[in-house]
Amino acid sequence: MANDEQGFLFDLDGTLMDSVYQHVVAWSEALQSVGLAIPVWRIHRRIGMSGGLFARALQRESPIPITDELREQLNTLHTAAFERHLVNVRPLPGTRELLQRLTDEDVPWAIATSGRARTAMPMIETIGLDMSKMKIVTRDVVPYAKPNPDLFLEGARQIGLPPEKCFVIGDSIWDILAARRAGSLAVGVLSGGYGENELVQAGAFRVFEDPAHLDRGLFELGVRI
Amino acid sequence: MANDEQGFLFDLDGTLMDSVYQHVVAWSEALQSVGLAIPVWRIHRRIGMSGGLFARALQRESPIPITDELREQLNTLHTAAFERHLVNVRPLPGTRELLQRLTDEDVPWAIATSGRARTAMPMIETIGLDMSKMKIVTRDVVPYAKPNPDLFLEGARQIGLPPEKCFVIGDSIWDILAARRAGSLAVGVLSGGYGENELVQAGAFRVFEDPAHLDRGLFELGVRI
Repeated sequence: MANDEQGFLFDLDGTLMDSVYQHVVAWSEALQSVGLAIPVWRIHRRIGMSGGLFARALQRESPIPITDELREQLNTLHTAAFERHLVNVRPLPGTRELLQRLTDEDVPWAIATSGRARTAMPMIETIGLDMSKMKIVTRDVVPYAKPNPDLFLEGARQIGLPPEKCFVIGDSIWDILAARRAGSLAVGVLSGGYGENELVQAGAFRVFEDPAHLDRGLFELGVRI
Repeated sequence: MANDEQGFLFDLDGTLMDSVYQHVVAWSEALQSVGLAIPVWRIHRRIGMSGGLFARALQRESPIPITDELREQLNTLHTAAFERHLVNVRPLPGTRELLQRLTDEDVPWAIATSGRARTAMPMIETIGLDMSKMKIVTRDVVPYAKPNPDLFLEGARQIGLPPEKCFVIGDSIWDILAARRAGSLAVGVLSGGYGENELVQAGAFRVFEDPAHLDRGLFELGVRI
């Protein structure tokens, strides 16, 4: 039985890397430094969505106009703050083992993140696998980030499978929405801090705790390894 | 119609103060600095529970023994890390207005937090109300923190109402469990980052977004103001 009929497209933050809370706090710091006090839980709910969409959503709650200049400034402030927190960011339990197993068993997979290469690559490096052999799709190479389907469509293209044959693994509502728009089957993980019900309600076919749990439960997705 | 038959017992972190994510990151930093890499979302799920219970739960996942000395060290490291983040902590939207309204209308209320006075008091000060007139119950004055009912029972005692006449307002499962053990009616807020379904499933009678939303919806709790 060939395994090449199933592929995996992984979100990065909160799915493979334990980086959501550092992103949340970095955004909070960036927003506060320009005088915007957005409650932190509302930022958490928006991690993983595109920066442009985030800025538009922000505009609805902001007393000051979010100009293109301010948006650029916020992106720069967030990146700088996140880089300060990067030293505390680790891969989630099971990330390395899961990706190694899929590689060993010739199950194609890619990483598709709303983040820029600049912040994503140093994190992916800490997983400890050969990056030259990985397919990695970042915000830099597609016109729109999540919840648009572009990142997952490009990931599917790179692994040579139609998106309908790919599972999308993500921790946030944006991953699941983007997966559905791409025509892929979404699978949730709790490791980004969303509640299980929210992910199921958005359309996750299954929810695992983290990559280690998914690794043990791959057979539940019909993966014959 | 007298309003003195209803009282409010408020959790602090994530309920009145936008401090949950800073606590999460502070715990993560403290744990990492002694070599314990607990995924951050699992820390989030435990914010608001007593430190002793947290240490016991930690023991089940830790490769090293959590001795009393290590526990003390972790508490000290967490407090120091949280104090570094304190500059970014703000009251949640509506906190001041809600507490002022209850005060003006002679509805008795108290704050009951699993935290120590040392970290709680500087936060409460930023709400901008007269602290000398507030009833504040911290971990320092009860034998057990949440989800034991002690903090809420002491809060009810201080405002002179039986706990069955008090609403407990909290953002976490621990608040709701402690409220139920105290015999109070629990009301959830989303501002600590838990999902609505989780709070309802734990037994929250109603869930509001944050203090501002609760302030507008007080009538839904039968408060005649």
